[in-house]
Amino acid sequence: MTNVDLQAMGRRAKEAGRQLGLLSAEARAAALEAIARALETAGDALQAANEADVQEARAAQIAPSLIDRLTLTPKRIQGMAQGCRDVANLPDPVGEIFDAKTLPNGLRIAKKRVPLGVLAVIFESRPNVTIDISALAIKTGNAVIMRGGKETLRSNIALVELVRRACEEQGLPADVVQLITSTDRALVPELLGMDDVIDLVIPRGGTGLQNLVKEHAKMPVAFGGIGVCHLFADATADVPKSIAVIRNAKIQAPSVCNALDTVLVHRDIVDALVPAMVADLNSHGVEVRCDEASLRALEGAEGINRELVTAAQPEDYGKEFLALVLSVRVVDSLDEAIAHIARYSTNHSDGILTSNYANAMRFLDEVDSAAVYVNASTRFTDGGQFGLGAEVAISTQRMHARGPMGPKELTTYKWIIQGDWHVRP
Amino acid sequence: MTNVDLQAMGRRAKEAGRQLGLLSAEARAAALEAIARALETAGDALQAANEADVQEARAAQIAPSLIDRLTLTPKRIQGMAQGCRDVANLPDPVGEIFDAKTLPNGLRIAKKRVPLGVLAVIFESRPNVTIDISALAIKTGNAVIMRGGKETLRSNIALVELVRRACEEQGLPADVVQLITSTDRALVPELLGMDDVIDLVIPRGGTGLQNLVKEHAKMPVAFGGIGVCHLFADATADVPKSIAVIRNAKIQAPSVCNALDTVLVHRDIVDALVPAMVADLNSHGVEVRCDEASLRALEGAEGINRELVTAAQPEDYGKEFLALVLSVRVVDSLDEAIAHIARYSTNHSDGILTSNYANAMRFLDEVDSAAVYVNASTRFTDGGQFGLGAEVAISTQRMHARGPMGPKELTTYKWIIQGDWHVRP
Repeated sequence: MTNVDLQAMGRRAKEAGRQLGLLSAEARAAALEAIARALETAGDALQAANEADVQEARAAQIAPSLIDRLTLTPKRIQGMAQGCRDVANLPDPVGEIFDAKTLPNGLRIAKKRVPLGVLAVIFESRPNVTIDISALAIKTGNAVIMRGGKETLRSNIALVELVRRACEEQGLPADVVQLITSTDRALVPELLGMDDVIDLVIPRGGTGLQNLVKEHAKMPVAFGGIGVCHLFADATADVPKSIAVIRNAKIQAPSVCNALDTVLVHRDIVDALVPAMVADLNSHGVEVRCDEASLRALEGAEGINRELVTAAQPEDYGKEFLALVLSVRVVDSLDEAIAHIARYSTNHSDGILTSNYANAMRFLDEVDSAAVYVNASTRFTDGGQFGLGAEVAISTQRMHARGPMGPKELTTYKWIIQGDWHVRP
Repeated sequence: MTNVDLQAMGRRAKEAGRQLGLLSAEARAAALEAIARALETAGDALQAANEADVQEARAAQIAPSLIDRLTLTPKRIQGMAQGCRDVANLPDPVGEIFDAKTLPNGLRIAKKRVPLGVLAVIFESRPNVTIDISALAIKTGNAVIMRGGKETLRSNIALVELVRRACEEQGLPADVVQLITSTDRALVPELLGMDDVIDLVIPRGGTGLQNLVKEHAKMPVAFGGIGVCHLFADATADVPKSIAVIRNAKIQAPSVCNALDTVLVHRDIVDALVPAMVADLNSHGVEVRCDEASLRALEGAEGINRELVTAAQPEDYGKEFLALVLSVRVVDSLDEAIAHIARYSTNHSDGILTSNYANAMRFLDEVDSAAVYVNASTRFTDGGQFGLGAEVAISTQRMHARGPMGPKELTTYKWIIQGDWHVRP
């Protein structure tokens, strides 16, 4: 049993969202500025809460890299404040009128962009996500109910209290941002059944969370964050430039969803590309899992770290490594590369490396991923890099939004129809 | 047990959809023209299948109005053929490039409109729907798996065979259109679990079907078709014009989702509006269920058919009558009208009747329905009336699309990014 009343939270979120949706863009931006100032002056209370989380994580012998992720430093807090101001300064999507027209019968008809309503976001253990999501929700006129990881519960409570006070100061209902303060797992299925209140669930986590959400969610879900990403080097790929793109896509941030997982290599370029590519990746600590044909190309090659080269197993294709590991497969044609991607990709980010115009166009047409690339690193799939200003998730679904979801993707529209006492003939 | 292998149908649909998505708009339009010709020359085989459905429906003592709906006449078949040509002539949404830009770093980025993939449509007993949906799916490059009502099973089998032959003739894979030829109810939950294949489910039916879909569907759903629609006559409404709009919204097609269900009347206009409105509606056979205040306004009024006036019960608000029945309630203010709509509307179509500019604007801003009207009949909520050319459903959800869903709403987009060997800094 827990003392969290999700139904009551839901009702409060719905009412707060309704009120927020009626406020001006200026009022919402002022609240974001107030949150930024509150972060900058939060001082000891926030630090103490975070310190308690860090102590407990250390006691639980959590991996140092994870402890680092949950630690709030003054610099990180300043970064969170700046993030709020950046979101405040983005163009406001709410209220935009589009597709406006006057019909032949004189009816004036248009679409007006409106908030989605109430968001539920379930995420892991970085406290800056708490502020990012709060800021994006307020920006877009949505109420949000958040559930963070248990490792940052105290930090999140402190941060959400700070956000709610800043909202109230600026005349926004505090309940636009609510945190589920219990880590009882039974609450998640209950939350996912509240389709009368919650308009969109955003699960930010691994396949376990995604499957739980798929099983229980009665409302729409923005799935994202699982990226099995491919680059295909065709027979005409520029070898040194291809290696630079592959290196960037693999090593810059191996634990994120737009990191490269599999390189497909056209048979005609295997000897030119594979030994040099593997030597380069090995030198950056990347383990390369090769199919037979690419292994053969490495025989006698120089600069290879034999400890970082293994024979690929079937499960190494279609796998999101989230680490300095890459699988390689040789294909005979563009068709075979496209078929491999159709079978193994999660349709997040896939690209071709080529100097051939027709191949580039065919790849763009026939590969149906959220982001399809020619001669660029998959690492660009990101709201900031795409010019959206911020993102709440990278959608790998097909409905509503694909790829980076920015402020606009957290809105919907309504039709507004103005008549002169029109009746339908 | 049934001999329908849904999994195999799903695999065929996915592959057929992939192939269809690569065909040109011209090839898809040619298939629609071939279907139109096939309908015009279908002759006896189609008539015989439909006649068997009609005979069985008569034997089952189904209501004559329903039997009429499922009967195919030469005129109706001609109408279906014309419908295919109309869809063929609509602008093609697939392949549209939008939001294109070159980023400061030289990356060329754009969104390209692509088909959703595989649709599943579950619908009731009008055979023309089978052709409408087939045509819209082919137009938008989507494969579709349909399940129609059992009363039209033979007609649907004949129609789908005709569509598939026409597709094959034109070089489209026949499996872009498939019909579930068993009416075994257990197949529906199985279909709703196939989220690996089906990208969107469209249930066209009542609350029973919608609840079944909500319970079982693992993929996105376009819910629609349930409209509890309101018109609010404020104190400044023009009385004769209001009555004309209310009459149109209520009586033109009482069994459809955009028909009017409840009239809210500002207290200041009750005596001027209610007796004349009720007399008018009664004269068209409409039963009016009145709250106390509106009943009082009818005391001693002329032209009222007392058999068609009753006291409203609480359940008469928030009810989709789908018949010549209307509920009336008197409110004290615009706020009270908006609150009533927020509580009882299904957020399909709601409107205000007013001569007051500020009230019109507040209503448009604060009522959050898919279609919000000023001085026009709710009957206009329709893909054809809104200029979309055709519609597959009227969405009452918030994600992806609201209101009439036309060809464009059956598509999604992918990001295409063309670089000059760009790496992320």
